[in-house]
Amino acid sequence: MTDPAHPQSEDTKVLDLAQLTDLLERVFLRAGASPDVAAILARNCAGCERDGAASHGIFRIPGYLSSIASGWVDPRAQPRVEDIGAAMVRVDAMNGFAQPALAAARSLVLAKVRDAGAAVLAIRNSHHFSALWPDVEPFADEGLLAISMTNSFACAVPHGAQSPVFGTNPIAYAAPRLGGPPLVADLATSSMSNGDVQIAAREGRQLPQGYAVDGEGRPTTDPQTVLDSGALLTFGGHKGSAISLMIELLGAALTGGQFSFEVDWSAYPGAQTPHTGQLFIVIDPDRGNPGNFAARAETLVERLLDAGMSRLPGTRRYQQREKSERSGIAIPLAAYQRLEQLAAD
Amino acid sequence: MTDPAHPQSEDTKVLDLAQLTDLLERVFLRAGASPDVAAILARNCAGCERDGAASHGIFRIPGYLSSIASGWVDPRAQPRVEDIGAAMVRVDAMNGFAQPALAAARSLVLAKVRDAGAAVLAIRNSHHFSALWPDVEPFADEGLLAISMTNSFACAVPHGAQSPVFGTNPIAYAAPRLGGPPLVADLATSSMSNGDVQIAAREGRQLPQGYAVDGEGRPTTDPQTVLDSGALLTFGGHKGSAISLMIELLGAALTGGQFSFEVDWSAYPGAQTPHTGQLFIVIDPDRGNPGNFAARAETLVERLLDAGMSRLPGTRRYQQREKSERSGIAIPLAAYQRLEQLAAD
Repeated sequence: MTDPAHPQSEDTKVLDLAQLTDLLERVFLRAGASPDVAAILARNCAGCERDGAASHGIFRIPGYLSSIASGWVDPRAQPRVEDIGAAMVRVDAMNGFAQPALAAARSLVLAKVRDAGAAVLAIRNSHHFSALWPDVEPFADEGLLAISMTNSFACAVPHGAQSPVFGTNPIAYAAPRLGGPPLVADLATSSMSNGDVQIAAREGRQLPQGYAVDGEGRPTTDPQTVLDSGALLTFGGHKGSAISLMIELLGAALTGGQFSFEVDWSAYPGAQTPHTGQLFIVIDPDRGNPGNFAARAETLVERLLDAGMSRLPGTRRYQQREKSERSGIAIPLAAYQRLEQLAAD
Repeated sequence: MTDPAHPQSEDTKVLDLAQLTDLLERVFLRAGASPDVAAILARNCAGCERDGAASHGIFRIPGYLSSIASGWVDPRAQPRVEDIGAAMVRVDAMNGFAQPALAAARSLVLAKVRDAGAAVLAIRNSHHFSALWPDVEPFADEGLLAISMTNSFACAVPHGAQSPVFGTNPIAYAAPRLGGPPLVADLATSSMSNGDVQIAAREGRQLPQGYAVDGEGRPTTDPQTVLDSGALLTFGGHKGSAISLMIELLGAALTGGQFSFEVDWSAYPGAQTPHTGQLFIVIDPDRGNPGNFAARAETLVERLLDAGMSRLPGTRRYQQREKSERSGIAIPLAAYQRLEQLAAD
């Protein structure tokens, strides 16, 4: 398979995960991030690249740096964690990135889930600029079931509306299973992700029919038109739109974050990171079904494979991860050199 | 608007909600339900009829009675509620209906949410044969945010598979708002609900293209073919399929209920009620965003209306409800007479 983000080329540099993480950490440090934030963002971004999630790997670095340079996001923010109930934790990300806010709250959330059976983590005043699956997969590694959702910036037109109100509004979940790595799904509730629109624009590819509209609400397949003045549609008609609405309510109204349509970065040229909120629901699934959840999940997986489903949620990432662990992560040489330059500047 | 379940006719009987509830309660009692179960199912079914949810109103009564008569579901079951954590409640519905199990656990769940900030309710060994919105809307009336999901019986083909594994697997949520009744969405993650397939078959209408397949996996638009040997598809391609999978994991694996594909009523001719599980996640949204959730939800609603969205989730039901409260619930005379007969037999 040709990786759309990295056209095949002889001119690649092969790194292992630690090397790529180290390089990206130096890039974030050089851009002004605190050591904690740099380490967390580097690990996240390198993990996306390793797993073949092209639209959230090193492709995102210019966006991170541009947003940091604009002053829109604070790369040195220290999240403030509040314990607000036996099953609830709030975090003010202090206008920093969402992943350090999650990291700051994670041990408290885990303790609550172990104790109470379930917990909600509400992060606000946060910037999420990556995939959601890296946030939920580690919970499943602990035997827990996690759901997360985040809103972004107005780029998707609700079903029945004429202008964008919702963000790409992804939802992700991770569930442990007995016979293999966790089931991890991560889906934008817009017709596609902004990252994939950007990649299509860069590569001159058209979007599928029915995914997007131009500035006047007319159907378009041109990615640059969408980026400049158009909008995506939500996926799956009124049903996908109802789920995207739920994500605005849970990701923003419930956390105290901004709605996607409230994100206004006009005073920060170069800003690209949506400043909203993120919600987690984490459940100890063995509490509901004593000692049995992972085995039951495996029974479901077996039935899905029997029914001819060739790819489970997460399969493609795990395959790419294994390949990267075996053969390293191949990065176009020009991109590698640019990263080294950014780390050294 | 013509109600598709009740073609316009002079031959209607008009009842108010209390009269219809009383009639249905007598029908359920006569069918062998315990007084508690009869009252809960009657209120649920009459409420669906009042709100214009044709596929879950009195249309469902023959299915309830057939399932009860088959011995497949116990209409006298007494649910067993277990308090299993500060944020988690389990209920064994004892092979009865899901709504009495919810009713039995509701006050404990509410107390936990008020105390801990959030709670999960896991119902298993239960039959859900109605809409989900009547289950979640009352939580929003209490100022809480509720999500529920339930799996059903194998009738939907997962994306990429060749045979049905998932049920219609609905998910519903309800959220309070300041300026009006709660936002309540309820969507099957199959391309449509079984109730709507049944209504289309009864009325001789074809299904939309791309919604269903026949017994050999070929596309079909014939509802009877779907009911006899075919299957629905999931909504929204691989994304809707991933959400339907999440509902199998949460509705069944996490609760201890059966997966949709495990429902085997072959020894119970006439059985129609899926015997699976149901999950609730209930959150105090003012804990995440102190004292402000409903006002923020209203801000979002205003923006959606400004963007041209004419119908919010739940709007059509609220309009029909108001009409029913004003003018009564009109039922075809033949259907009314049949219900009176069932109540008296």
